[in-house]
Amino acid sequence: MSIEPFDAVDVISIKRDGGAVPEDALRWMVDAYTRGYVADAQMASFAMAILLNGMQRDEIRVMTEAMIASGERMSFAGLGKKTVDKHSTGGVGDKITLPLAPLVASFGVAVPQLSGRGLGHTGGTLDKLESIPGWRAALTNDELVAQLRGVGAVICAAGSGLAPADKKLYALRDVTGTVEAIPLIASSIMSKKIAEGTDSLVLDVKFGSGAFMKDVDRARELARTMVALGTDSGVATTALLTDMNTPLGLAIGNANEVRESVEVLAGGGPADVVELTVALAREMLALAGQPDADVEAALRDGRAMDAWREMIRAQDGDPDAALPEPRETHTVTADADGVVTRLEALPFGVAAWRLGAGRARAQDPVIHAAGIDLHVKPGDRVVAGQALFTLLADDETRFARALDALDDAWTIGAEAPPSSPLVLERITA
Amino acid sequence: MSIEPFDAVDVISIKRDGGAVPEDALRWMVDAYTRGYVADAQMASFAMAILLNGMQRDEIRVMTEAMIASGERMSFAGLGKKTVDKHSTGGVGDKITLPLAPLVASFGVAVPQLSGRGLGHTGGTLDKLESIPGWRAALTNDELVAQLRGVGAVICAAGSGLAPADKKLYALRDVTGTVEAIPLIASSIMSKKIAEGTDSLVLDVKFGSGAFMKDVDRARELARTMVALGTDSGVATTALLTDMNTPLGLAIGNANEVRESVEVLAGGGPADVVELTVALAREMLALAGQPDADVEAALRDGRAMDAWREMIRAQDGDPDAALPEPRETHTVTADADGVVTRLEALPFGVAAWRLGAGRARAQDPVIHAAGIDLHVKPGDRVVAGQALFTLLADDETRFARALDALDDAWTIGAEAPPSSPLVLERITA
Repeated sequence: MSIEPFDAVDVISIKRDGGAVPEDALRWMVDAYTRGYVADAQMASFAMAILLNGMQRDEIRVMTEAMIASGERMSFAGLGKKTVDKHSTGGVGDKITLPLAPLVASFGVAVPQLSGRGLGHTGGTLDKLESIPGWRAALTNDELVAQLRGVGAVICAAGSGLAPADKKLYALRDVTGTVEAIPLIASSIMSKKIAEGTDSLVLDVKFGSGAFMKDVDRARELARTMVALGTDSGVATTALLTDMNTPLGLAIGNANEVRESVEVLAGGGPADVVELTVALAREMLALAGQPDADVEAALRDGRAMDAWREMIRAQDGDPDAALPEPRETHTVTADADGVVTRLEALPFGVAAWRLGAGRARAQDPVIHAAGIDLHVKPGDRVVAGQALFTLLADDETRFARALDALDDAWTIGAEAPPSSPLVLERITA
Repeated sequence: MSIEPFDAVDVISIKRDGGAVPEDALRWMVDAYTRGYVADAQMASFAMAILLNGMQRDEIRVMTEAMIASGERMSFAGLGKKTVDKHSTGGVGDKITLPLAPLVASFGVAVPQLSGRGLGHTGGTLDKLESIPGWRAALTNDELVAQLRGVGAVICAAGSGLAPADKKLYALRDVTGTVEAIPLIASSIMSKKIAEGTDSLVLDVKFGSGAFMKDVDRARELARTMVALGTDSGVATTALLTDMNTPLGLAIGNANEVRESVEVLAGGGPADVVELTVALAREMLALAGQPDADVEAALRDGRAMDAWREMIRAQDGDPDAALPEPRETHTVTADADGVVTRLEALPFGVAAWRLGAGRARAQDPVIHAAGIDLHVKPGDRVVAGQALFTLLADDETRFARALDALDDAWTIGAEAPPSSPLVLERITA
């Protein structure tokens, strides 16, 4: 006879039959799965039942707490600064973390951005920064705290000690068709953010073709679930629901996204990248107690750029070094006069990935110079023969498969497309 | 890269999203799971999606065919007799196969009853027959065919070669909370029956406290699903929906159930056992082309008894040998005058199991003499002090736990209970 206090089949059956799993049973289920007592097959059937029958707000909080309890928990209580973090659900050309972290830090706030690498068509923040000669992603906890105390902004690799249950569960969900369960997405993201010990958090939840959530209603549900979860867990949380049907900015890749980020920090850069950076910075500063901070001034007057250069140098990067350049380029031009009515994020993300900017397997390297530079955005007028975008690669044999992905990825029409807001909604507790 | 034609996550996702899985994908999923290419965790998540989102009629047929294709397939085509089989979803005191097989065989029909052993509170047909000294459950295929050709009736152990995918999937469902999926119950039962090669099949689908399906609507859905599946697979199939709120007959156990079966074959026996035996025999003979067979006459005039004795002897049993008797008995009496209004099947099944009539693990032995003899049934008048039932065991220490199970298992009231039909409905294609 087992001395375990619950039986996995009983716990699964509660969720299967549409009930709410009691707190002690749910904590046990996560713990027993982490220990290997509950089998993968049992957790897979439980995950599918959660996906199809949902979880109540309290269940999601308990699930998240159980995942946090599986690993270490950080604390920045001794910093003497407010800490505020940002998380994006990922998109094409989404380099916002790069200008955002130093911008917010320039107001005396600590911004610990524990980030990941890219897999599939969405890039990884660490991959982008590794375009910068010398820059290193791995910091010790002491280095992280010292940099937060000094520069204020840190973008570094998340340690493997945070929420190991989430790592095991995520790998299982990936092979069992249960990635899409909103309660599990929310607890996966938030368990790591809460374990990290931030005071407050701003979420950039994206919808559209280049986003994880194609559908705006599902994205809104995820945003609301995560805001409720953060609030219930003592982390002040706000979310912006933002459009990811079109790539963000003009650069998709790694080195070219760093270049574009530096343009924004210098007071320039594409309008959409500036708009989203400013919107997220305002939310972060509001949560840190500075609702009236003049964010745009810090971009104009060099304070954000100074923070960026300090942040890069603190991690052994050279902010003045030349970034990698592609060996081969291929430019695609307009075949008619008209207006760009559509530039679809997903195929441009896939094409950049095929050019070498992303990786198919976690152990693969990325090509830092690879990617796509856009020369136009939806709403721009073009004439036949005008350059639309340039593919960047180290090997010209990559262009054919990238161009395959871009078949039907853009449209040139007679009329300008209706404008749609980049930030659709703001979701608060 | 894999050379498999499908991806398990894609197949799971179709069912998760409420779609119908295409035939080739579903066949592949079952085959790849049997081969071990699809992991337990993937099949568990698929099973939960089937449980919650259902399967269409065609999908259930394909799933069943795929399970049949995983193993060997028998054929009785050369017998020169029609074959008809019966399957019961299991209940308390359900010994109907014992009188039924020889009764039907006495009309010149072949009845191949490939049966199992009991696990949990419902007994196993083979366990009951093994009360008879000398009788053996295991037959070779040649012995099985010879006995069908001669006696006509065979009750023996199902070989492990039939539908091995079902065996693997059933063991997985048992630990993942997915036993209750009607499409999977139907394909599990029917894959073995169809692989066995019978021409036609009568299903006894039970509902009520002692049945696998407590709820009559779920039992009806299972019956309709299996009748459709049998029909689609070329096996003429009829189902009776029968009441399992009260134990069948007066004997619950092994040796005592054989004794009661012999009473029925001798033209006596409890009214409910006779009623259900006759009703099922009529359905089986109708499917075998004898809709007007005088079933009751064969019980009265000894033809069914003769077939029984031949069937037992053919498997080395001695139909005249004394059956095992319990070493200890304990009789429970009425504490008031009145009418028995309720005798709940499930607690009586659990009590008989605790007395040793059933097993908790597949490798445990059963005590053939253990069980319960009922002396009254719902509707019977009793006076205070009158014997209600007698517990039978080889060890008196078992009585306490059996009596615990029987707490609140019966009611004596002032008014006779409303009568409810034993056979509620007949379900045909």
